Amino acid sequence: MTALNWEPIDAKAVDTARVLAADAVEKVGNGHPGTAISLAPAAYLLFQKVMRRDPSDDQWIGRDRFILSAGHSSLTQYVQLYLGGYGLELKDLEALRTWGSLTPGHPEYGHTKGVEITTGPLGQGLASAVGFAYAQRYERGLFDPEAAAGTSPFDHHVYVIASDGDIQEGVTSEAGSLAGTQQLGNLIAIYDSNQISIEDDTDIALSEDTAARYAAYGWQVQTVDWNTKAGYVENVAELFDAIETAKANTTQPSLIVLKTIIGWPSPTKQNTGKIHGSALGGDEVAGLKKAVGFDPEKHFDVADDVIAHTRGAIERGQAERAEWQKGFDAWAAANPERKELFDRLEAGELPEGITEALPVFDAGKDVSTRVASGKSINAIAPLLPEFWGGSADLAESNNTTIEEAGSFAPPERSTAMWKANPYGRVLHFGIREHAMGAIINGIVLHGKTRPFGATFLIFSDYMRPAVRLAALMGIPSVFVWTHDSVALGEDGPTHQPVETLTALRAIPNLTIVRPADANETAWAWKAIIEHRDGPVGLVLSRQNLPVFERGEGDASGDTFAAASNTAKGAYVLAEAPNGTPDVIFLATGSEVQIAVEAREVLRGQGVNARVVSVPSQEWFLAQDAAYRESVLPAAVKARVSIEAGLKLTWAPFLGDAGRSVSIEHFGASADYKTLFREFGITTEAAVAAATESIAAARA
Amino acid sequence: MTALNWEPIDAKAVDTARVLAADAVEKVGNGHPGTAISLAPAAYLLFQKVMRRDPSDDQWIGRDRFILSAGHSSLTQYVQLYLGGYGLELKDLEALRTWGSLTPGHPEYGHTKGVEITTGPLGQGLASAVGFAYAQRYERGLFDPEAAAGTSPFDHHVYVIASDGDIQEGVTSEAGSLAGTQQLGNLIAIYDSNQISIEDDTDIALSEDTAARYAAYGWQVQTVDWNTKAGYVENVAELFDAIETAKANTTQPSLIVLKTIIGWPSPTKQNTGKIHGSALGGDEVAGLKKAVGFDPEKHFDVADDVIAHTRGAIERGQAERAEWQKGFDAWAAANPERKELFDRLEAGELPEGITEALPVFDAGKDVSTRVASGKSINAIAPLLPEFWGGSADLAESNNTTIEEAGSFAPPERSTAMWKANPYGRVLHFGIREHAMGAIINGIVLHGKTRPFGATFLIFSDYMRPAVRLAALMGIPSVFVWTHDSVALGEDGPTHQPVETLTALRAIPNLTIVRPADANETAWAWKAIIEHRDGPVGLVLSRQNLPVFERGEGDASGDTFAAASNTAKGAYVLAEAPNGTPDVIFLATGSEVQIAVEAREVLRGQGVNARVVSVPSQEWFLAQDAAYRESVLPAAVKARVSIEAGLKLTWAPFLGDAGRSVSIEHFGASADYKTLFREFGITTEAAVAAATESIAAARA
Repeated sequence: MTALNWEPIDAKAVDTARVLAADAVEKVGNGHPGTAISLAPAAYLLFQKVMRRDPSDDQWIGRDRFILSAGHSSLTQYVQLYLGGYGLELKDLEALRTWGSLTPGHPEYGHTKGVEITTGPLGQGLASAVGFAYAQRYERGLFDPEAAAGTSPFDHHVYVIASDGDIQEGVTSEAGSLAGTQQLGNLIAIYDSNQISIEDDTDIALSEDTAARYAAYGWQVQTVDWNTKAGYVENVAELFDAIETAKANTTQPSLIVLKTIIGWPSPTKQNTGKIHGSALGGDEVAGLKKAVGFDPEKHFDVADDVIAHTRGAIERGQAERAEWQKGFDAWAAANPERKELFDRLEAGELPEGITEALPVFDAGKDVSTRVASGKSINAIAPLLPEFWGGSADLAESNNTTIEEAGSFAPPERSTAMWKANPYGRVLHFGIREHAMGAIINGIVLHGKTRPFGATFLIFSDYMRPAVRLAALMGIPSVFVWTHDSVALGEDGPTHQPVETLTALRAIPNLTIVRPADANETAWAWKAIIEHRDGPVGLVLSRQNLPVFERGEGDASGDTFAAASNTAKGAYVLAEAPNGTPDVIFLATGSEVQIAVEAREVLRGQGVNARVVSVPSQEWFLAQDAAYRESVLPAAVKARVSIEAGLKLTWAPFLGDAGRSVSIEHFGASADYKTLFREFGITTEAAVAAATESIAAARA
Repeated sequence: MTALNWEPIDAKAVDTARVLAADAVEKVGNGHPGTAISLAPAAYLLFQKVMRRDPSDDQWIGRDRFILSAGHSSLTQYVQLYLGGYGLELKDLEALRTWGSLTPGHPEYGHTKGVEITTGPLGQGLASAVGFAYAQRYERGLFDPEAAAGTSPFDHHVYVIASDGDIQEGVTSEAGSLAGTQQLGNLIAIYDSNQISIEDDTDIALSEDTAARYAAYGWQVQTVDWNTKAGYVENVAELFDAIETAKANTTQPSLIVLKTIIGWPSPTKQNTGKIHGSALGGDEVAGLKKAVGFDPEKHFDVADDVIAHTRGAIERGQAERAEWQKGFDAWAAANPERKELFDRLEAGELPEGITEALPVFDAGKDVSTRVASGKSINAIAPLLPEFWGGSADLAESNNTTIEEAGSFAPPERSTAMWKANPYGRVLHFGIREHAMGAIINGIVLHGKTRPFGATFLIFSDYMRPAVRLAALMGIPSVFVWTHDSVALGEDGPTHQPVETLTALRAIPNLTIVRPADANETAWAWKAIIEHRDGPVGLVLSRQNLPVFERGEGDASGDTFAAASNTAKGAYVLAEAPNGTPDVIFLATGSEVQIAVEAREVLRGQGVNARVVSVPSQEWFLAQDAAYRESVLPAAVKARVSIEAGLKLTWAPFLGDAGRSVSIEHFGASADYKTLFREFGITTEAAVAAATESIAAARA
């Protein structure tokens, strides 16, 4: 086992980290100093002694990943990014939590170099870390599956710092259970068990044996207790040894329960809730500085020998990287095809032939969009080794299984239905939607593969915090949500989304796609894999829908538009019979057929209705004004939305004369035809709404 | 220990339950037969041999509670409700999952007698059961705290049937940890560990030692394995003994891991994913019937001796109830004051003096609405012993602590900050928002107390499935959500709600209340405790807000309206200076002050602006048309909404000429004044929007 080299200058650097954290919070007047002070030794150990990272290149694919799940303690990370030379300087620490600074309240992905993931909502980091660990293994499987463990340039570890809050959140229980099942030897989490949260001593609400719980998940659990008979001793070597032991265990994720005193050695506020989330006050900061032998009059003061020592991380990182590069180059030379794949993924490019591979569905057949999605997934999967995913125990219902691909799991987890291998492409999340969301995010953040995770649309509620975080980070997580309306039928209102599309469309930077038929579904998948600037939710029907007969291009006369228009978000599917619309229907998914039928009924009444299919409001709003005007001419005020859910998101498209065919209440348990009839999602309702809207537009 | 009396007729009744479940799913063609077949012995045991219930009165407060967390297996419950004489008959089982039937796909609270809670979204039942158990203890504390354990009419048990899905969901991990901390000896969960979920053998995604995990939470865990060396033997007596052992343990919640074979004894589909969620098919149903010695040609066929035997539950229940009534009457005679409280709660009434107790905040001061809420809670708490609640580790931030009330927890969980007793009023959920939501729901469902749970508004996302279920059930759970906009400031975008109000308002039957100042907050609390037809989310500011100078009644001239208008949802806070509005501002919460300022600026420009404070869109929409017209006259088309979040929910109130001052993107980390300025939540923006809207209304 490697021995730790720990000099007095390291101790001084750790103390420097503590006082910088205290100074930074004090300057802005708010923040979370406590953990940053007491966890400085652990963070320093990771950044300076444990992790293989090159501060000069935060994108180096060989780097160990670091996740601060306790995002409120952002200074724990910022101070190390400063000390280690990752790009942050003292002025950045001084600008903590202020407008435009590189040091926001919580670490933000894409904003500060060296931050691998946005954290802060508790549990998300630790849960996404499981996804990082999945991704490391899957990417290794893509590029270097034959290499012995620990010998591949694609081998590295994922380190996490987690807090009392993280381990209480349910999402980490879900993810922890999966991590054990997956035997993620590459995952090492340090749980800062300081037993203080905002309501002070956690005893009031936390009595479980967390170590035993993680052992029950199948984790290796070690406890490092810095509270000794001789008082509180920050035994860094003991922690280092535990990390080494964890690294040596390649078949279990590791939890190191590190028992600390929050805020130590702050003289009066250590070990209290006060130090968790508030500035210390000048006296206490001075007391802290005195306790570690620093000048209480100085602020943001870093000794030259300290920074010279810690910035040695740059040179060490570059040296480690040069060593790694040799292995990588040897791998590249020996694996030209895999290197080609690697280069394509790094460049963010797609191979030729996606369009040609898309399934084409014959008009006149009835196909649910979930089935069409399953066929689309399987059509493009052979071209895209980076494309993988699965379901939260609803594979058959979600139609998300890549056939004959093997399941991603240790072989011993194989069952009669699923054959597993460590590099399989089919993900099984169990009944754990929230962890699924966080894990998908982690996979996306780790590398350039394209994972997807599926459940029923209603259960997007269970994973919403992870979906929001994907949107906030602007990362291309893909969520497949089937059973997309009351039309799922007999399972009843607990399973029937009504408000769900609205609630999802409300999330900034999240794209929702609800295709109208099988061919729109295929083209939606193409657009989704081309889309890298944010998460997408693909919303699919349980029930069969007619496959529309379409032409090759735009709608014209009675020829329907080609499904290749899907990526525009909205397009004229069927033109008004005389070419000049009296009224425009806007519909999505299973309700587009109702618009098509209503167009025919209205034609019989001498009314010319245009049908606009709107698979994605977001994609449509991203089109230029001219295109939008061509689809929804301002002059046509009579408009009707048809969607089996709330009408709210249609209001901006409809205007005062617009009307909606919608459902404004919870569903019920019955077959879907009965529900659509009882809830007024019918051709008759669409015709009546059109008539009303035309009248309102004339008034 | 009581011995089980189990006759051949009981075994026949159990087999009857199995074939009824198979017949019912077969008739409608879809549903979940597997668990209902194999778990029939356990369910029958609970309903016929274990639980103290009176089928003729499903509201008897002395009843043991039953929660089918595995809601998809609704037949497990429906068949017992039929056999036991709770009101369901064969025709109801025949109508399974059809429009208007008493037997919807998942059990629905308020719809079918004997159903204590709507379940189906996995994990919710088991998590809410923890709330039921909290409530039993708290109610005992209200009415009969001195009674020895097991001797009070307020003593009973909460029984749960949970599935592989339930134990995987994170919400149950959170709730399970709390249940252990709370030492809930009144909670007994049977975990049907059949190791089959929709993706077949759970081995593919579940390898944890669940028994060890629950032991780590502090539960008593017993395992009853019906897979024996002699084959599969439904040893009902062993299960009964385990339940008796669980009942005898009064200081730990109990998990009984019952290892079953799903669908047993169906000949070919037992122990497969196929039997979980699909009809068996005629041959398999026939095979099942043959396996249990029933006539495969008969459907919904119940032998007279079986139903005569099982309906004996009515007489037994009434006898048990009569016995219980003696104890209750003795208690009532001995405790007249407590009986008065009991009667008031049962009647759903409030005491005199609430209005008088409300705090009055002086105009001109600056008070955050969260602080005003804390003062309101503490003002009404002395009048309302049924009013209790707390926070998910944010007590000080949420201002939800009932002072000097004692914390609800075993005394040994007391800390330096909190003194605990089993009947305390202050709830501590730890960092477990989702369990908090489910527990609050369980408390509300158990009895007539009025609990509240609090966190930051952004983390309503974590508890959304529970909030939705409260809305679906129409129960008066109260959620306090503070830090209600980007104005929470430095914590940054992970903590700043932008889309959150919209996403919550989208949930049918959920009321969102966002008061504009301290006095609106007090009146909001009054309205909330008077409100019993659905859940309420009270949305509060972190930052201080001016307390408006108000008159006694409606707005008039420059006199602002009284805060007692809050319950109307929207009201004219400040009339247009000349009495005839050129433009109407609609604002909520912290943005109402901006509307007030803009009104003054516009007055200087000769423009007359009315300010409408809209604490609750839902309450406003519940007012009659005349009132709504009086607040928002149709003739005034120039309207501007001001809310520091998405504008979407305002569109229906604004019309084509309306404009919005809003935030359509994620937030940032900085002080709130900077954020409001940078994001355009300003008086200037409000004035500009008003000018634009007036022009649009004229065009």
